[in-house]
Amino acid sequence: MLSAQQLNTFLSHEFPQCPAVVEQVGERSSTVRYKVDVSALRPGGTVSGPTMMLLADVALYAAILGTIGLVPLAVTTNLNINFLRKPQADKDLIGVCTLLKLGKVLAVGEVSIYSEGEDEPVAHAVGTYSIPPKQ
Amino acid sequence: MLSAQQLNTFLSHEFPQCPAVVEQVGERSSTVRYKVDVSALRPGGTVSGPTMMLLADVALYAAILGTIGLVPLAVTTNLNINFLRKPQADKDLIGVCTLLKLGKVLAVGEVSIYSEGEDEPVAHAVGTYSIPPKQ
Amino acid sequence: MLSAQQLNTFLSHEFPQCPAVVEQVGERSSTVRYKVDVSALRPGGTVSGPTMMLLADVALYAAILGTIGLVPLAVTTNLNINFLRKPQADKDLIGVCTLLKLGKVLAVGEVSIYSEGEDEPVAHAVGTYSIPPKQ
Amino acid sequence: MLSAQQLNTFLSHEFPQCPAVVEQVGERSSTVRYKVDVSALRPGGTVSGPTMMLLADVALYAAILGTIGLVPLAVTTNLNINFLRKPQADKDLIGVCTLLKLGKVLAVGEVSIYSEGEDEPVAHAVGTYSIPPKQ
Repeated sequence: MLSAQQLNTFLSHEFPQCPAVVEQVGERSSTVRYKVDVSALRPGGTVSGPTMMLLADVALYAAILGTIGLVPLAVTTNLNINFLRKPQADKDLIGVCTLLKLGKVLAVGEVSIYSEGEDEPVAHAVGTYSIPPKQ
Repeated sequence: MLSAQQLNTFLSHEFPQCPAVVEQVGERSSTVRYKVDVSALRPGGTVSGPTMMLLADVALYAAILGTIGLVPLAVTTNLNINFLRKPQADKDLIGVCTLLKLGKVLAVGEVSIYSEGEDEPVAHAVGTYSIPPKQ
Repeated sequence: MLSAQQLNTFLSHEFPQCPAVVEQVGERSSTVRYKVDVSALRPGGTVSGPTMMLLADVALYAAILGTIGLVPLAVTTNLNINFLRKPQADKDLIGVCTLLKLGKVLAVGEVSIYSEGEDEPVAHAVGTYSIPPKQ
Repeated sequence: MLSAQQLNTFLSHEFPQCPAVVEQVGERSSTVRYKVDVSALRPGGTVSGPTMMLLADVALYAAILGTIGLVPLAVTTNLNINFLRKPQADKDLIGVCTLLKLGKVLAVGEVSIYSEGEDEPVAHAVGTYSIPPKQ
């Protein structure tokens, strides 16, 4: 299994300029932090929806790669996200991912997104990655 | 009904730094361009998934606001996106949105996303916005 | 390409007791009718949500099989449905499916569902089928 | 809070002929059983997708009504379901629902569906209900 640091090195090549950092990776799981700064904010001081979609996508990718190793051609095929509450503008977002299935061809996982330190999620996503066949 | 230019002025405040531009807005519809540059690319020369999610979100927002007027507190409650084909790295993305429902409380629309000039969509999204009650 | 009648014969084995009938099948498309009777109704005289999910699922299946031939092991991997308006209790439901992608491994399509004769859809679904490798 | 028995009495009016039974209802949660018999099966001895969609829909409804009381006009606005593994033909399906949000207007919840006694879910759904304003 990969370490969070190995994943961050890999992700910094895959998603350059992405302010998401893997904090923890386990068997079929990950925790990813999105450092909220002004570029992620909308008027009214809330975090934009696409920011949370990006965090969900990265958390799924981290949980999959952390379990099966670095597969650069794994791609998202579906993502469904529900926005539940207004995130706080002055707190980082934390995405907690659990894989529901890790097959040879498809992986499916869910991600709960929190404003750091809060109990109730601000968003919840479920996504599918297609895993390329081994060479 | 608003013009594309009025919407772009509004969006540049709502989504600062967003490289999506409304090209056309009609009754329950919009066309939005995402100018693809290096920051949207992943290794292998393809456009990242979150970039397409952002384009879908903006296209829905443009179609809704273009029809009902500038409602800054309309927020996305759900977005579902399927990634269908690899986008081309050297072409802009074009999102074409049609609203399926525009109720008093919820609006639902679909967005087909194309690499400019191509016939087959690279992604397809369906999203819901919650519209706040009028004051 | 298969005829609607060939598909109905096949579906009557795959989904016994299913009151959905393929009316038309074309290249990457289908039209399927659900005969609404009392078993599909909820109090207030509307059609139940699961009835519309079933219709969407059958319409996707018909469009895929109509194009690639009878593949009994194709299975749904994802279905997302939005309910838009109250269906009419005294009209059949008509599902109109168009495939967005028909790959070797995955097929993705959308289905608009109408109360027969109405212009505005009562529901809209997007679904993915996994297609098994050829023997 | 309602009891499982009160909910079953109510559901038998709302969804007549529905073979789903509420086993447990708690604060923002429910457990619902679908008695698998031949009418839910597809060739190959697996349970049909629409059967699992129905179970997810009922589990969400039970968790919402169990918490806020009998609101007959609550309706599903969105349901997204991923099918993960082949269910077993000779076991009932168990849907376990947790609400992610229970607002005044919208409720969102997730449902994991299991073949009874198994550890890994056969399907996972996320759905939204619209709650009508109180009279």
